[in-house]
Amino acid sequence: MKRVKIAVIGASGYTGLELLRLLLTHPHAELVCVTSRQNAGRKIGELFPRFTGAESADLKFIDPEPEAIAATGAEVAFLALPHGVAAGYASSLLEKGLRIIDLSADFRLEDPEVYKEFYGDDHPAPELLKEAVYGLPEVRRDAIPSARLIAAPGCYPTSISLPLIPLLREKLIDPSSIVTCSMSGVSGAGKKADLSLLFCECNESARAYGVPKHRHLSEIEQELGKAAGEKVVMSFTPHLIPVHNGICTTTSAKLTGTPEEVNAALETAYADEHFVRLLGKGGCADTKNVTGTNFIDIGWEYDERTGRVLLLSAEDNLGKGAGGQAVQNFNILCGFSETAGLQNF
Amino acid sequence: MKRVKIAVIGASGYTGLELLRLLLTHPHAELVCVTSRQNAGRKIGELFPRFTGAESADLKFIDPEPEAIAATGAEVAFLALPHGVAAGYASSLLEKGLRIIDLSADFRLEDPEVYKEFYGDDHPAPELLKEAVYGLPEVRRDAIPSARLIAAPGCYPTSISLPLIPLLREKLIDPSSIVTCSMSGVSGAGKKADLSLLFCECNESARAYGVPKHRHLSEIEQELGKAAGEKVVMSFTPHLIPVHNGICTTTSAKLTGTPEEVNAALETAYADEHFVRLLGKGGCADTKNVTGTNFIDIGWEYDERTGRVLLLSAEDNLGKGAGGQAVQNFNILCGFSETAGLQNF
Amino acid sequence: MKRVKIAVIGASGYTGLELLRLLLTHPHAELVCVTSRQNAGRKIGELFPRFTGAESADLKFIDPEPEAIAATGAEVAFLALPHGVAAGYASSLLEKGLRIIDLSADFRLEDPEVYKEFYGDDHPAPELLKEAVYGLPEVRRDAIPSARLIAAPGCYPTSISLPLIPLLREKLIDPSSIVTCSMSGVSGAGKKADLSLLFCECNESARAYGVPKHRHLSEIEQELGKAAGEKVVMSFTPHLIPVHNGICTTTSAKLTGTPEEVNAALETAYADEHFVRLLGKGGCADTKNVTGTNFIDIGWEYDERTGRVLLLSAEDNLGKGAGGQAVQNFNILCGFSETAGLQNF
Amino acid sequence: MKRVKIAVIGASGYTGLELLRLLLTHPHAELVCVTSRQNAGRKIGELFPRFTGAESADLKFIDPEPEAIAATGAEVAFLALPHGVAAGYASSLLEKGLRIIDLSADFRLEDPEVYKEFYGDDHPAPELLKEAVYGLPEVRRDAIPSARLIAAPGCYPTSISLPLIPLLREKLIDPSSIVTCSMSGVSGAGKKADLSLLFCECNESARAYGVPKHRHLSEIEQELGKAAGEKVVMSFTPHLIPVHNGICTTTSAKLTGTPEEVNAALETAYADEHFVRLLGKGGCADTKNVTGTNFIDIGWEYDERTGRVLLLSAEDNLGKGAGGQAVQNFNILCGFSETAGLQNF
Repeated sequence: MKRVKIAVIGASGYTGLELLRLLLTHPHAELVCVTSRQNAGRKIGELFPRFTGAESADLKFIDPEPEAIAATGAEVAFLALPHGVAAGYASSLLEKGLRIIDLSADFRLEDPEVYKEFYGDDHPAPELLKEAVYGLPEVRRDAIPSARLIAAPGCYPTSISLPLIPLLREKLIDPSSIVTCSMSGVSGAGKKADLSLLFCECNESARAYGVPKHRHLSEIEQELGKAAGEKVVMSFTPHLIPVHNGICTTTSAKLTGTPEEVNAALETAYADEHFVRLLGKGGCADTKNVTGTNFIDIGWEYDERTGRVLLLSAEDNLGKGAGGQAVQNFNILCGFSETAGLQNF
Repeated sequence: MKRVKIAVIGASGYTGLELLRLLLTHPHAELVCVTSRQNAGRKIGELFPRFTGAESADLKFIDPEPEAIAATGAEVAFLALPHGVAAGYASSLLEKGLRIIDLSADFRLEDPEVYKEFYGDDHPAPELLKEAVYGLPEVRRDAIPSARLIAAPGCYPTSISLPLIPLLREKLIDPSSIVTCSMSGVSGAGKKADLSLLFCECNESARAYGVPKHRHLSEIEQELGKAAGEKVVMSFTPHLIPVHNGICTTTSAKLTGTPEEVNAALETAYADEHFVRLLGKGGCADTKNVTGTNFIDIGWEYDERTGRVLLLSAEDNLGKGAGGQAVQNFNILCGFSETAGLQNF
Repeated sequence: MKRVKIAVIGASGYTGLELLRLLLTHPHAELVCVTSRQNAGRKIGELFPRFTGAESADLKFIDPEPEAIAATGAEVAFLALPHGVAAGYASSLLEKGLRIIDLSADFRLEDPEVYKEFYGDDHPAPELLKEAVYGLPEVRRDAIPSARLIAAPGCYPTSISLPLIPLLREKLIDPSSIVTCSMSGVSGAGKKADLSLLFCECNESARAYGVPKHRHLSEIEQELGKAAGEKVVMSFTPHLIPVHNGICTTTSAKLTGTPEEVNAALETAYADEHFVRLLGKGGCADTKNVTGTNFIDIGWEYDERTGRVLLLSAEDNLGKGAGGQAVQNFNILCGFSETAGLQNF
Repeated sequence: MKRVKIAVIGASGYTGLELLRLLLTHPHAELVCVTSRQNAGRKIGELFPRFTGAESADLKFIDPEPEAIAATGAEVAFLALPHGVAAGYASSLLEKGLRIIDLSADFRLEDPEVYKEFYGDDHPAPELLKEAVYGLPEVRRDAIPSARLIAAPGCYPTSISLPLIPLLREKLIDPSSIVTCSMSGVSGAGKKADLSLLFCECNESARAYGVPKHRHLSEIEQELGKAAGEKVVMSFTPHLIPVHNGICTTTSAKLTGTPEEVNAALETAYADEHFVRLLGKGGCADTKNVTGTNFIDIGWEYDERTGRVLLLSAEDNLGKGAGGQAVQNFNILCGFSETAGLQNF
C-alpha cells in the first residue's frame, strides 16, 4: 500500500495533536518528521502519552528548520503554526519541493489588503497567494490534486460556509440579512498557558467573544461572496462554551426562495458528499454526533413568522474544522480514497 | 423582623429547589408549606440533602391540596408547577386569600388566544388574566405591590427582553430585524427522567432545539411590542449546552439610532437597578459571573460593517430567570428591601 | 479479507453503542444483526445519528428472538444485555451454533453459589458455567480460540485485576491488605431514565456508591484468588465522577517483596502486551489518555513510609472495560490480528 | 451591628476569591484592605466581575506592604498566600497588632523539622509556631478566641481528619491500617497559568497525583497522632477530577471496635456541630450537596467481609477546606455567632 512521507510542523498544540492522531493510523501516511521548538528531542509518545503504542510513537520532535525537515524525505508537510509564522515555512518548504497543507490563516485570503485589515500585518508572502487553493473539498475539489499549496479553511468558516454556499449560489436568501451565532469548544482557543482557559474559568461558563469583527469573517465573506456573485457582509458572533471540541453554528437569513428550494439546494450540493450529513428540515445538529470525526451535520428550518431560514450545523472544530479536513485534502492531493484514515465514528 | 408565611407549591423540580434555597435563608420569609405529590411525607432535608441544617429542613412535603395549603397559614404561595396546572391552584388559593407568585407560563400572556396558539390548549383561567401582573420589576415595579397574582417571567424572556426594551422604547433599532440566539444550561429543561437529559447525552453536546417557534416567543414578543409601540415578530433560537445553570443570550438588530444612544438608553433604564449590571460597550457577559445570583449582566457592541447592534446578556436561568426574580417580586409585593435574601455573590 | 458475520444483541445501551462503534469499522466484521426490543424496525443511523454514513447504518434493529437472530446468518453474537437475561440468549444461540461473547456478568463466575450471593438469584444456566471462558486475554489468551462462550470481564474488574495479578502471582503483596478505590465515568451506570443520572445531578458531583459489597467484587476476588493461590478478600469502593467514560483505579497493598520485584513482575507480565501500557514507577495513569481506546495504562509507586505499594491504572470503562475487550476476544476467537479494529488513538 | 475591619492579603487566587465572596456579605466584616501585587490599583469588581454590585466592590487592590496594610485600620488579616511567603507577613502584621488567620501551610505544623521534611525549606518563622492555633473548630474551638495567629487547616486534612479523629480517640480503629483516597476539584490546584490545568487537559480526565507523600500528610498525621495518642503513619492518594470545587474522601481502616461504637463516636463528636452533617451508616457523601457552603458531610459503612470501616466525607475544598473554615475561625475569634456569614445553602 502506497505511503506518502509526511511532516507535521508545529505539532504541540491541539490542532497538531489531532493531526497526529489521524496520521498515526492513516493507511497511506508515513510520519517521518514532527517539529516543536520547545519539545525538540522528546518522543511523540512522551509528549502525548495517548499515542504510546503507535507505530511512530518513538519518532522524536526536531527543531523546525527547513533543511532538517527536508532531510527527513518528507513529501507533504502539514503546517500547524500560528498565522504569520506559517507563510515563511511554506515558502521554504515549497522551494525544497514539498507540497504544503497549511492549517493557519496565511493563505486563505486572496487579497493581501483583506489580510492586513483583519490580521493587522502586511502579508508575509503575497506572491504565493495566487497559487494557494482554499481547501474546502466540497466546494472546489477539482483544484486540489494539482495544488502545491493548500490553505485548509478555518473552523468557524467551514461550519458557516458549507450550509450557506448552496443557498447563496441559488440566490435563495438575501445576502445582507445573514446573522450567525457559533458556539465553540475550548480547544478552539488553542493550547496556551492563559488564565482565561483554565478549567475553573471555562467550566460552567458561556460567553461571546471577539465581537464584532472576528478574524474568520474575512475568509467567510470571501467564500460567501464568491457563491453569491456579490459582496457579502454578515454578522457573526462566536461564543466559548464548556466542551472540549465541537462547533455548533446557527445562521438566520431572510428567505427569498421557497423552503423546498432550500432543501433541494442542499441535497444537490451535498447528497453525494460523504462528510456532509444532511439532517433535513427540523434537524438540529448536535456536536456530540460529530466529535472525533470529519463529518459536518447540517439541518435547517423555516420560520414562516419571520420569513427567515435557519441553518443548523455541527462539526468538530479539530476535525472537519481543522485536522480532519486537512487529511481530507491530503487524500485528494495524493489521489487516495477521500475517506482514507477518516472512517472512524 | 417581620416574616411572611410562605408556601412553595410543587417544590421538587429545579425551580422549586432554587426557590427553597433562597427562601430557607430569606430574612423575611417563614416557610410553612411545601408540596410535592410524589414526596408527600418526606422532609425537605431528606429529599434535598443540601438543605440539611437549615431552620426549616424538617418541614415535610404535603400533597398539594388547596385546603391543606391554606390551613398552614401561608400568606404568599409560590407556584412552581407546569403550565396548565398552575392556573387551577392560583384560582383556589386566591379564593382562600393568599397572594400568588406563579412561576409557570399561565398568567404571562394577556391574550388567551396567544396562549392557545403557543401552548395548544384553551387558557385554564382566562378571567384572571386581566389582573395578573407580569413581574419584571425593572419594567413595571409600580404595579407589583398591589397585585394579588404575579406572573414571574420566563428565563429566556428575561434575558432577551431586558436588553431590548430600552432600545425599542427609544426607537433605536428596527423591530423587524431582531435575531436572537440563546444558550441555556441543562437545568432549564427541568428535572425529568428523560434519556435526552442524561449526563452522557448532554456532556460535550451543543445543539439548537425548539425551532422555529419556542413557546417563550409569545411573552417575549408581547413585552417587546409594548416597548416598541407596535407588533414585534422576531427570530429566536435556543440552544442547550453542558452547564448546570445559566443563560447566555446574543441579540442582533439593525441600529436606527447611534451607538451613543444605545448606551444612554441602557444607562437611563438600568443605572439605578441593583440587579442589572451594565458592562458597557464591548462587555461580553459571562454566565459564570451570575450563577447562583439574581443579577443579569448586559453588554453591547456596535458592528459598523453591518450597521447592527449586538446585545450580550447573561443570567442564571434559575435565578433572575426564575427563583431569584420570583423572590425579588415577593420583596416588592410585601414592602421589603428589594434585595432581601438576594445579596449573595 | 475474511469477514465474520456478527450479531449484537441488546444494542441500545452505552455498551452496545460502543460495540457498534467498533464493529462498524472492523475490517473482519460484517454486522448482520442488531436487536433492541424498544427500537425494532428503526435503522442504526436513526437511533444513533453518529453512525450515519457507516456501511451498515441502514441495518434495522429487530426483536431479540433467537430464531430471527440465527436466520441472519450470524456466526458470532455479542450479548450486551442485563445479567440474568443474557444467559437465556446464550443457551439458545449456542444451540443454534453461534459462538457467544457475553458482556454481562452471567458467565464470569465459576461458582453458582457466588453468583447467588452477589446477584441475588439462582444462576440461570449453571450447566454452561464450566465451559465459559473468562475473557481476560492478557491472563488466559490460550483458552479463548477454542471457546464457544466467552464472558467478557467487568469494567472495574479489568482495571483492578490486571495490575494486581502479576504481584499476587509472584507473592509480592499481602493479599489481605488490598484496598481499592475506583472512579468511574457516568456511562458506567448505563443508559437509564433515572433522575440520579441526569446531567444536573452528576455534573459537579463526586460520590462513593455501592458500598461495601459491589457485585463486581465477586469476579475480582475469583480472579485474584487464582493468581494468589489462596482466597482473597479485599476492600473496594467505587465512585461516580462527572466524566463520560473512563475508570481511574488506585489500589494500595502491603508490599512483601521489593519495589524492584514489583516492576519486574509487571514488565514480565505485560511488556509484550499491546493493550497494556506500563508507565513505570511514579506513573499516574490518566483516563484522558485511554478514552475511546482498548488500552489500559498502569503505573505504580512505593510508599516507604507505610510499606505499601500503589497501583495506578486507567482504562475506558466502555473500551478495555467492555466493548473494546469484547472485540479483542473476538479477534482472538476468530484468529485475526489481536489489534484488528482496535488501532485508533 | 459590630463590624470588624478586615484585610485579605493575596486576594487574586481561588482561595482569596472565595474569602472575598464570603466576607463581602458577612454581617460583621468590613473589608478595608485587599492586596495583590499584579493587580494593585484595580478595583475588586474589575478583577472579579462577579462581585460588581457588592458594597465593597470599588475597593482597590494595593501592594502587599505591611505598613500600608496596617494603615487601613485592619484588625484581622486573612493570609491567602503561598507557603513560605505567608510567614513573613504574619510576623510583620502581628507586630503591628493585627490578628492573623493564615490559610497557608506555614503555621499548621508544630515541629519545624516536619515542615522542613515536607516543604523542603527551613521554617521561615519557627518562633511563632508555639502560639499558632490549628484552627479546626470542631476539635479545638476553645483555643481560638484568645489566639493571635490561627492556622486554617488544609483542604484534604479537614476532609480526612474530621471523620477519623473521633474513631482514633476512642481507639476504634487500627491506626496503622488507614488508607485514604481523595478526589479534588481543579480549583484545589490553584489559579495558575499552567498547561496541565487548562480546561481541555482536565475535562474528561481523572488521575492520581502527588504520590506517595503529599505535603498535606504532615498535618494530617500530626492531628491524627494527637487523637490516637500515638504516632500515625497512613497511606493517602489524592486525585484530580473535573469538578470546579469539592473534595470527596474515602478512608478505609481496620475496625477494632464495633460498628455501633463508630456511630456513637461520630454522634458524640459532631451531633451538635452545625457544620458537620452526619449521614449515618450507608451515607455516601456527595460533593454536590456541600459546594459553596461550609458544611462537611460524613457517612460511614462497615464491611464485615474485610473487617474494615469506610468513612465517606464531602466538603467544598474552598469552603470548609479553606475560606469557609477561615471565616468560621474569624467568627469564633471575634465572638460572633459561629455561623455568621456562613448560612447560605
